[in-house]
Amino acid sequence: MKTKATFYHAGCPVCLAAETHVAQALDPVRYEVEIVHLGQAKSRLAEAERAGVKSVPALVLAGTAYHINFGAGLEALR
Amino acid sequence: MKTKATFYHAGCPVCLAAETHVAQALDPVRYEVEIVHLGQAKSRLAEAERAGVKSVPALVLAGTAYHINFGAGLEALR
Repeated sequence: MKTKATFYHAGCPVCLAAETHVAQALDPVRYEVEIVHLGQAKSRLAEAERAGVKSVPALVLAGTAYHINFGAGLEALR
Repeated sequence: MKTKATFYHAGCPVCLAAETHVAQALDPVRYEVEIVHLGQAKSRLAEAERAGVKSVPALVLAGTAYHINFGAGLEALR
C-alpha cells in the first residue's frame, strides 16, 4: 500500500518550484502524490485546513502538514 | 547521476518529524540524501547559508533551499 501524499499549491512561482523539486522528488514506489491547486479547487480548502495547512505550498504526508517556504496564506485563496 | 539533496536540521522535534517524513520520502533512485545536524556540525553553517538556508529544517535540492515549517533560525545555532 502506498502512502498518500497531497501537495497543495496555488500556482504562484514559489509553489511551482516546490512542486517540481519537492513533490515530484518523492519516491513513487512508496508514495502516491496528488497535486491540488487550491486557487482552482476552492472546494478543497476545508479539507486542506483540516489537515493543518495554513499556507501554500504545503505537503501533507501521512497526516502531517509540512509548509514549504511561503507562497500565500489560505485566506488569500477564498 | 543522482541529484544531491541535503537536509539540514538541528535535532529539534519539528526537524526530526520533517526528516522522517520528507527527507526520507525522496526517491532513492534519483536522489542522494545527506542529513546534516547543524547543531553538531557547526563547521557547515557557512555552507548552509551560502545555499540560502535561513532556518532549519531545510532541504537543499538541486541548489535551491526549501524551508520546511520552522524549527529554529540559524542564529540560534552559532
